[in-house]
Amino acid sequence: MSKNTNNSAIPYKIYLQENEMPTHYYNVRADMKDKPAPLVNPGTGNPVTFDDLKPVFCDELIEQELNDTDRYIEIPEEIRDFYKMYRPSPLVRAYCLEEKLQTPAKIYYKFEGNNTSGSHKLNSAIAQAYYAKKEGLKGVTTETGAGQWGTALSMACSCLGLDCKVYMVKVSYEQKPFRREVMRTYGASVTPSPSETTEVGRKILREHPGTTGSLGCAISEAVEAAATSDGYKYVLGSVLNQVLLHQSVIGEEAMTAMKKYGIKPDVIIGCAGGGSNLGGLISPFMGEKLRGEADYRFVAVEPASCPSLTRGRYAYDFCDTGHVCPMAKMYTIGSGYIPAPNHAGGLRYHGMSPIVSELYHQGEIEAVSYTQTEVFEAARDFARVEGILPAPESSHAIKAAIDEALKCKETGEEKTILFGLTGTGYFDLYAYEQFNDGNMTDYVPSDEEIEASLATLPNIEG
Amino acid sequence: MSKNTNNSAIPYKIYLQENEMPTHYYNVRADMKDKPAPLVNPGTGNPVTFDDLKPVFCDELIEQELNDTDRYIEIPEEIRDFYKMYRPSPLVRAYCLEEKLQTPAKIYYKFEGNNTSGSHKLNSAIAQAYYAKKEGLKGVTTETGAGQWGTALSMACSCLGLDCKVYMVKVSYEQKPFRREVMRTYGASVTPSPSETTEVGRKILREHPGTTGSLGCAISEAVEAAATSDGYKYVLGSVLNQVLLHQSVIGEEAMTAMKKYGIKPDVIIGCAGGGSNLGGLISPFMGEKLRGEADYRFVAVEPASCPSLTRGRYAYDFCDTGHVCPMAKMYTIGSGYIPAPNHAGGLRYHGMSPIVSELYHQGEIEAVSYTQTEVFEAARDFARVEGILPAPESSHAIKAAIDEALKCKETGEEKTILFGLTGTGYFDLYAYEQFNDGNMTDYVPSDEEIEASLATLPNIEG
Repeated sequence: MSKNTNNSAIPYKIYLQENEMPTHYYNVRADMKDKPAPLVNPGTGNPVTFDDLKPVFCDELIEQELNDTDRYIEIPEEIRDFYKMYRPSPLVRAYCLEEKLQTPAKIYYKFEGNNTSGSHKLNSAIAQAYYAKKEGLKGVTTETGAGQWGTALSMACSCLGLDCKVYMVKVSYEQKPFRREVMRTYGASVTPSPSETTEVGRKILREHPGTTGSLGCAISEAVEAAATSDGYKYVLGSVLNQVLLHQSVIGEEAMTAMKKYGIKPDVIIGCAGGGSNLGGLISPFMGEKLRGEADYRFVAVEPASCPSLTRGRYAYDFCDTGHVCPMAKMYTIGSGYIPAPNHAGGLRYHGMSPIVSELYHQGEIEAVSYTQTEVFEAARDFARVEGILPAPESSHAIKAAIDEALKCKETGEEKTILFGLTGTGYFDLYAYEQFNDGNMTDYVPSDEEIEASLATLPNIEG
Repeated sequence: MSKNTNNSAIPYKIYLQENEMPTHYYNVRADMKDKPAPLVNPGTGNPVTFDDLKPVFCDELIEQELNDTDRYIEIPEEIRDFYKMYRPSPLVRAYCLEEKLQTPAKIYYKFEGNNTSGSHKLNSAIAQAYYAKKEGLKGVTTETGAGQWGTALSMACSCLGLDCKVYMVKVSYEQKPFRREVMRTYGASVTPSPSETTEVGRKILREHPGTTGSLGCAISEAVEAAATSDGYKYVLGSVLNQVLLHQSVIGEEAMTAMKKYGIKPDVIIGCAGGGSNLGGLISPFMGEKLRGEADYRFVAVEPASCPSLTRGRYAYDFCDTGHVCPMAKMYTIGSGYIPAPNHAGGLRYHGMSPIVSELYHQGEIEAVSYTQTEVFEAARDFARVEGILPAPESSHAIKAAIDEALKCKETGEEKTILFGLTGTGYFDLYAYEQFNDGNMTDYVPSDEEIEASLATLPNIEG
């Protein structure tokens, strides 16, 4: 515990004051010379318009989705008040981890898990629920995989008095009954997907009887449910530009806290499934880099079992299994790809946020992948010294941060590392049990498997 | 969400600065004219001495246990550094709950759940593990019921490099496998109790084959394991004076935060099982009251199924089922009492901390009890507006705070209510599921049942 002794002026955990919290979302697209490619209408092959999206999304959220020019978008006061229920989130110096690793590196993490949804997902859930309420809707529909997004949305809807219909990937619905109960406690209805309640669900069940579902299926069902229910719109927890915009509060708070104490990160690391956490964390730093004001390295960390950045293709693809959504140009391993069922963590999505994809394509972001056993080893080591039991998703970033710190140990460099600790693993103990019992297995798709999946990509020019 | 808008100078959540955190534990016994009755040696019937306790407890902890004269006891710097990993805990203004209740009362809660153990238990676990390490021990033994204390201790031991042996009440071991996995992830060994690993465990199993265990059984086993293992001592998560001493950091932080912003609570409410949270929260305020410097009301809240204060007797009783521990004078419903198995929450202990018992006996504390269904209703209502999913134990305090606030609504009084929100319910979703499904049943013991249990009290004069 010796290194934990902190005699500097910098607190162990930096909490901003409420009046230092961001008042505007930062829109990184405004600072990108080459913008992310637009979503396209799967029917016409043309870029989507406001009117294309109107049946599914709320008006103000469509405007945010399509806005790639305004650098700052004001956060309504009601949302800022809501954020004060659980934000600002702490920026923590990982003294004990540094000591365990015997590294000269300085490691910081932005911890987003201190709320009942257990992750950063609440940042966008609140915003999306707020705009839905403002538009006079009765409720919203969504999908959830591991359950963090569904939990966050049910919390936001509960506070705002909105109905919330969640389509939960069937395998998660059965394996994570406790997440389901959190959502029910907040008043949400939770349906295992694919279900008989939608046309696309019935079609998927006919074609794949006995399927345990996927995020792509659940998205299709939630979109159909919104489009066919009066007073309902659809909301999504990752991938979309609007979601990364809302998540920019993570990076803005981290940047404010670091500047307040004169800390400059050399490398910024985030786990990447759909890209919402990574995009939110890096956005304001990326803005400085794109404007030539500062230099940073950015690292996206993904699971070896679902490697969209490291082994996928940058191309237009469907966002959902039922092909009812607009198509996005993104790094993808194909919308038909279903990660191995032994995969314990989240980050199972076949594609990657168009913003993150374009930045990766431009070489502004690096990417690495890890197998789940090495990720859980990092999670255990982190938990034992830093106290917090991390989510499997977040632990991908921990693993990469540890590797960066160990490189510093070899070279003697005193780099400053910042990573996003997106959430807690309290609902992932089944996976920890597998790991503790030595029963965890790793899966890495073969080149043939990925090629076969990529062969199903639609033929659209970006 | 309107009332949530906070334009005053008081933040929504008050986080102290690290340099405002307490440097000393506050020992309320120093300000009590009539001291809590001493523990007695079950063999001799005499007050325990340092030497009586030495085979089981660490030296410095025995000194704290027996010290009823020093008002302040310094917190070693190593422990204060450890506290900085998850403290200070926020003092939160429950604006949304106030608005939902339409009460003129101002409700604050001190939230202790933002750490992986999920509760305030870590405050004492760290202190006890620190003194064990300082004494050069190999490890510690303990019992755990719902698992919060065991989790907290395994976290503290993991950070300090101590071995940790946890005896977990068998019914919880089976019903809460995820708590068990958290402890295992932190490197603890977890044994379901009663077990074949101790003499007292074997005896209990012979006499009560098929028993699902109780805290009292698990305490007996953990004490025996410590007394018979070289380099091990026993540690306990509640009831003892030393534990309430460590938990005084809760009340000290709350008092500092309130004074900083000119807030004076009229009534202070805590749930009470063994009394550690309640005792810690109220201690410094009680000190002011006992010294005649300020006036406060204090309310202990217990489950109707295990009503030691409201229906028990103030008498010497055994602390454990195996009768291997010292006896304590406390409010008790008898060491043989086993709460109904349908009881979902914690707070199942048959006795109450001697400090809390004596203060209650003196009329300084009030007590109320609630059935679990009404407690879960309060938990759900709180979660839906305040965001946090509370532990069943903590929800007893929520229920009492809501009732106080509703009384203010009737009378128009603008009282300030402070309650302790001791932890989160992330590992209690099985109970929430029962509640959500309408399958929760309440149990209130009959007078005959309590009388029969009290008839087993030992005949010791206090």
